[in-house]
Amino acid sequence: MSDIEREVRAVAERAGDAAADLAPLSRAVKDAALEAIAEALVKRADEITDANARDVARAREDGTSEAMVDRLTLTPARIGAIADAVREIVELPDPVGESVRGGVLPNGLDLRQIRVPLGVVGIIYEGRPNVTVDAAALCLKSGNAALLRGSSSAYDSNTAIVAVIRDALAGTGVPVDAVQLVPGRTRESSQALMRARGLVDVLIPRGGGSLIQAVVRDSTVPVIETGEGLCHVYVDAAADLDKAVAITVNAKAQRCSVCNSAETLLVHEAVAEAFVPRVLAALADADVTVHGDDRVRAIAAAHSSPATVVGATEEDWAAEYLSLDLAVRVVPTVDDALAHIRRYSTRHTEAIVTDSLPTSRYFVSRVDAAAVMVNASTRFTDGGEFGFGAEIGISTQKLHARGPMGLAEMTSTKYVVTGDGHVR
Amino acid sequence: MSDIEREVRAVAERAGDAAADLAPLSRAVKDAALEAIAEALVKRADEITDANARDVARAREDGTSEAMVDRLTLTPARIGAIADAVREIVELPDPVGESVRGGVLPNGLDLRQIRVPLGVVGIIYEGRPNVTVDAAALCLKSGNAALLRGSSSAYDSNTAIVAVIRDALAGTGVPVDAVQLVPGRTRESSQALMRARGLVDVLIPRGGGSLIQAVVRDSTVPVIETGEGLCHVYVDAAADLDKAVAITVNAKAQRCSVCNSAETLLVHEAVAEAFVPRVLAALADADVTVHGDDRVRAIAAAHSSPATVVGATEEDWAAEYLSLDLAVRVVPTVDDALAHIRRYSTRHTEAIVTDSLPTSRYFVSRVDAAAVMVNASTRFTDGGEFGFGAEIGISTQKLHARGPMGLAEMTSTKYVVTGDGHVR
Repeated sequence: MSDIEREVRAVAERAGDAAADLAPLSRAVKDAALEAIAEALVKRADEITDANARDVARAREDGTSEAMVDRLTLTPARIGAIADAVREIVELPDPVGESVRGGVLPNGLDLRQIRVPLGVVGIIYEGRPNVTVDAAALCLKSGNAALLRGSSSAYDSNTAIVAVIRDALAGTGVPVDAVQLVPGRTRESSQALMRARGLVDVLIPRGGGSLIQAVVRDSTVPVIETGEGLCHVYVDAAADLDKAVAITVNAKAQRCSVCNSAETLLVHEAVAEAFVPRVLAALADADVTVHGDDRVRAIAAAHSSPATVVGATEEDWAAEYLSLDLAVRVVPTVDDALAHIRRYSTRHTEAIVTDSLPTSRYFVSRVDAAAVMVNASTRFTDGGEFGFGAEIGISTQKLHARGPMGLAEMTSTKYVVTGDGHVR
Repeated sequence: MSDIEREVRAVAERAGDAAADLAPLSRAVKDAALEAIAEALVKRADEITDANARDVARAREDGTSEAMVDRLTLTPARIGAIADAVREIVELPDPVGESVRGGVLPNGLDLRQIRVPLGVVGIIYEGRPNVTVDAAALCLKSGNAALLRGSSSAYDSNTAIVAVIRDALAGTGVPVDAVQLVPGRTRESSQALMRARGLVDVLIPRGGGSLIQAVVRDSTVPVIETGEGLCHVYVDAAADLDKAVAITVNAKAQRCSVCNSAETLLVHEAVAEAFVPRVLAALADADVTVHGDDRVRAIAAAHSSPATVVGATEEDWAAEYLSLDLAVRVVPTVDDALAHIRRYSTRHTEAIVTDSLPTSRYFVSRVDAAAVMVNASTRFTDGGEFGFGAEIGISTQKLHARGPMGLAEMTSTKYVVTGDGHVR
């Protein structure tokens, strides 16, 4: 075992001890700790911005794009917003102890299934240092110890932020080791975290597809896959075309860089002649480049569409563009739409636009995805929009949690069975 | 890729197609298929017992113990009981489509979270061929395609059973490929199943600890760990000693070979002098060998206990005996009991015997296990006892399902969001 692996495992063991102490704490104790964190972040913003300046300088030296530098940069105002987000988590109900199922068995035993923390949650993430605070706060509120492994580009910022959080915890009933940074900034340290089975209860990667796939591949710790979204909008033969245009443009262009934006539009051939010219015009207004099949290109040409339409290839159907590009295909039937979705979807969010109740029922029962939108934009798949208050990510897997993961999804359960000396 | 790996992947792909067709089927269609399976098993019992006779003969040639041969043996009466168990699953409610959460969002969107099948469920199991039918029936009822990998010792029996099941399905609305045996009887075929990530949604190993640990270690498919049970009974200072004796003996001896039997008894020192002699006498009546710490041995000697008491070593605290052996230790406080449990427990079931409400609350909130029994035997952790009607296993992990897994635990969920053209 290498030194760094030994260090990571020692940190994980301390997290396990902290998790055991954290599990029975009441909401009041956890909320007071979160308040203390929010206050400390604002009070010690200078320390954090100083550390952040070192990360930013290093990023500039490395020739990082200004957009990425901006994502990395912390200002007092941004730290204030991060602290406000912590206070929003204070307001959310505590999932721990919630009764999920309960009753009295025929033999008089009292059976209750209650929510309990998962234990030690590892978060491996890229990008913005606000995730450090956000992940720590969501873990604490749900009674979990957090092991944070951010990107090496934000290492100084994350180190400063975690020091502030831990100092704040020292004055509360929450153990300080409930929030720890995984030591090291090399690949070896994240690999050690992924191999800490038995010490870490779950790993949640937050970031791009390649990060997530690497964690899924290398981790022996159970992983919750999040975030990859190759979402489709299917415009049915019975669609209201006004709604279909609005939903398509919103799903693609309202914020194209996120996982719940649409990447492919499927159009039933019965409405293709009427719908495609209209949607192409609206997409052109939104600066969207269309990657169309032969049918779409023929319709665009026949109508002298103002849209930029290039030919779609096999790669386009499989592309999570995360940009102002949209693949568009005409399909003969709803079953062809379902077959296309089954082949290319990442099972995140699929939308149908239709006024036909039977077709809506047919599509909803057959499409395999975390969320199915009927006459609504794919952009609604979001913890905030769903009313969960906060989310740690959007799960695209089927085990444990599927779709936006709020605080309840960061818990497990425990059966509590109470009797009067019952035996079998 | 080897031939066998190619074959296993082809089988898994057909299971995926079957799962897509199976997911939207109504309960009536699935129940009719289960009835057809139950009928066919009884009607074609001869074919199954003929195949089973070959497995039994091979087992005898290999020098298998008579107890194991008995577990392997199928008779017309046993096949009748297996068919009856399928009919019991017919009677259970269908979890698919059940609404888990629902409401109307502030913007008027209708949000529902509904249960959907997991998809393709792989079961790797040892021992009795009844598991083949049981696992297939539970998968079908919950809308999942089953990929069955039994032990090579039951290969002929399992092949005959699956042939009968598939023939029965051919006359129903359920696709035949919803139940398949994984081809091959070598380690290579189970390894190929464990590596079929993306084709198999979850693997559930059913069997002994070494099988489960091998699957957890080698599988890239998500695994649900089941079954390992190093369960404790803690007799508190405030325990009713009559109840404590009854619960200890029941937890250990009512059926000692199963995962929810107790392996270690912890006794608060305040009641050790009064309780240990009584429980030792009762354990002696039940033919239990006690592995006691120094304190227990001293008390046994002082009272000339009829029990067989040998010295406990570190290995005893870590032993899942699954036999008429019980480790017994005296602890100074409830916190020492909790520390012992945290160190040695497999997080299956822990019991406390106490009449103190504060101590019961303290223990329940701090012990980390799938089930906590208060004044009840550990033997109650069971899908049947909990009223789930049937179980695929008892999960000892925290993700997805914890404790007895009934039909609901064999599902995932999907959000269905319905609007009138809603955009963000």
